[in-house]
Amino acid sequence: MGVKYSLPESFRSYRNTVRVELKKVIDSCPPALCNMLRYHMGWQDEHGHSCSRESGKFIRSTLCLLSCQVVGGDTSQVMPAAAAVELIHNFSLIHDDIEDASYERHHRPTVWKLWGQSQAINAGDVMFTLAYLALLKLQEKGIADEKVASSIKMLSLACLELCEGQYLDVEYENRLDITIEDYLDMAAKKTAALLAVSTSLGAYLGSEDSKLVDFFHLFGKELGIAYQICDDILGIWGVEESIGKSASDISQRKKTLPVVYGLQSSDGEARKRLEKLYSQKSIEGEDIKEVMKILDQLGARDYAENLAEQYYYKALAQLEATRLDTSRQAPLKETACFLLKRDF
Amino acid sequence: MGVKYSLPESFRSYRNTVRVELKKVIDSCPPALCNMLRYHMGWQDEHGHSCSRESGKFIRSTLCLLSCQVVGGDTSQVMPAAAAVELIHNFSLIHDDIEDASYERHHRPTVWKLWGQSQAINAGDVMFTLAYLALLKLQEKGIADEKVASSIKMLSLACLELCEGQYLDVEYENRLDITIEDYLDMAAKKTAALLAVSTSLGAYLGSEDSKLVDFFHLFGKELGIAYQICDDILGIWGVEESIGKSASDISQRKKTLPVVYGLQSSDGEARKRLEKLYSQKSIEGEDIKEVMKILDQLGARDYAENLAEQYYYKALAQLEATRLDTSRQAPLKETACFLLKRDF
Repeated sequence: MGVKYSLPESFRSYRNTVRVELKKVIDSCPPALCNMLRYHMGWQDEHGHSCSRESGKFIRSTLCLLSCQVVGGDTSQVMPAAAAVELIHNFSLIHDDIEDASYERHHRPTVWKLWGQSQAINAGDVMFTLAYLALLKLQEKGIADEKVASSIKMLSLACLELCEGQYLDVEYENRLDITIEDYLDMAAKKTAALLAVSTSLGAYLGSEDSKLVDFFHLFGKELGIAYQICDDILGIWGVEESIGKSASDISQRKKTLPVVYGLQSSDGEARKRLEKLYSQKSIEGEDIKEVMKILDQLGARDYAENLAEQYYYKALAQLEATRLDTSRQAPLKETACFLLKRDF
Repeated sequence: MGVKYSLPESFRSYRNTVRVELKKVIDSCPPALCNMLRYHMGWQDEHGHSCSRESGKFIRSTLCLLSCQVVGGDTSQVMPAAAAVELIHNFSLIHDDIEDASYERHHRPTVWKLWGQSQAINAGDVMFTLAYLALLKLQEKGIADEKVASSIKMLSLACLELCEGQYLDVEYENRLDITIEDYLDMAAKKTAALLAVSTSLGAYLGSEDSKLVDFFHLFGKELGIAYQICDDILGIWGVEESIGKSASDISQRKKTLPVVYGLQSSDGEARKRLEKLYSQKSIEGEDIKEVMKILDQLGARDYAENLAEQYYYKALAQLEATRLDTSRQAPLKETACFLLKRDF
């Protein structure tokens, strides 16, 4: 891994406006539900007292706004879409934490851990609904109804992929026969679909050029896959503090890329040992260390880093294919680079 | 309770077309998810074999289409909205079954019981997304984009109420201080909001008269409250076969209207005994019988039946206030009457 990039200027500049837009939407919902959502966002503690534990970087919003900026659109008009993609992301986190039985997110108890599974399901459903209500605010920004309807369709299709990706992620836990192709299909849906709709919505609402939209869609998709692979690497080798959760990917038998690579290895002995470890109901203690040792031996980390790099360059190629002024592309490139926290 | 009405002609006539529309939407989603949704709808068994265990009456779709018909609209144009409200209802059933830990629905294991909680959460999320994709098909029916966007807003606002209603329903389980007013607020949100958007969408898409839409909204709302109260009565005194679930409302300490009435009773002794029973973590066996006996003694059933009747008449008053031809109103009145399975 290379040097860590600090939050680029483009992130810092949009973060406050995105937060204001999100707060407007979330605070408009009934108090009882609002409490859970504000807690999840890190704006208040579990007792309802204000706090600033916000740790989300608003990646999807920022990608949406930067894409709009790069195509020469008016970012203030696109703010509702930026809020919507962030709300979809957070709805999926709330439900994902229940599905993965995760106790903590960003060093704080998850919503279901505090309010119980039932209310966390409801909290996620509300966040989902708010995404649509946020997106409809495009009307107030003077976006034509036809474009509003198309934006809703784009978001819904991305949600469908997201749900399928979540399904596959859970389903793969019990399987040992996942191929690299299966993995890439899951990552494209679980993670990349939402990044792709973030960038394509930004371009769609900021320009009238449909070809541009396709390039931005693919840019977001390739970037999303690279991002998921980096997340997989962090989930195994990242220090606990940096991601705010323990190495739960291994204990939950998640079929992350390094593990899929290991389970497909031609080194029969290592593969069999991994298969045995991953045949348990969960992987704990010394077994986690053994998994990491085997993956290291097989070069699974190098393989994953190389593949992430390939997808990163594929993403950049899409951006270059737009033939937009290179200097205009710069903030989006800088952001892509920051997201992968790498210096290739 | 009066005589039971058989399925009115209006229901039978629309049921097939609604089913076709729903199948089109559901079958368009990825196979793995599709299986869970088709199972939930009663179109296939858990092994993926076709079956016809469908037991949903498509109440919300039918109300939507009948409302359109009554205002003189083209029901075939409104079919996407009819599908959307039914999909929202079914999304909420799938999540509700997890929240209430219900093992069965319509005499079959619930989705979470067969596929686990995680995948059932995903199945509900997909059903939710499909509702929006279904509604967007209004565009293909020649509905103007402005009306499509407004329909999406109407549906989203109803979903927000629905989620709040679900939240309150769960939250009330642990409380003894629920007033009749609290109960009505919860019923208006949990149940009536979706019926109200069903009728108002039908009127909105079938006419250009915004006053009519308001009447139909209120008609659906009052009818929805009456419907929820009848459901509460069935949940306590209905025979198990007729609703396809056991008397779980009592064991789960649901604050249904008869129970709320009992817990607010001026008969101190009965109230205290009820409070004691409802202070347990769950109510089982002989205690269920005792709850029923106390509620009978207090006249809780009569009270609930009378209140349902009042809301039924309030609903009819809204319909009459439209000043539409009485004969045109007839199928909707017939349906309202059928829904409450009562002869008042």
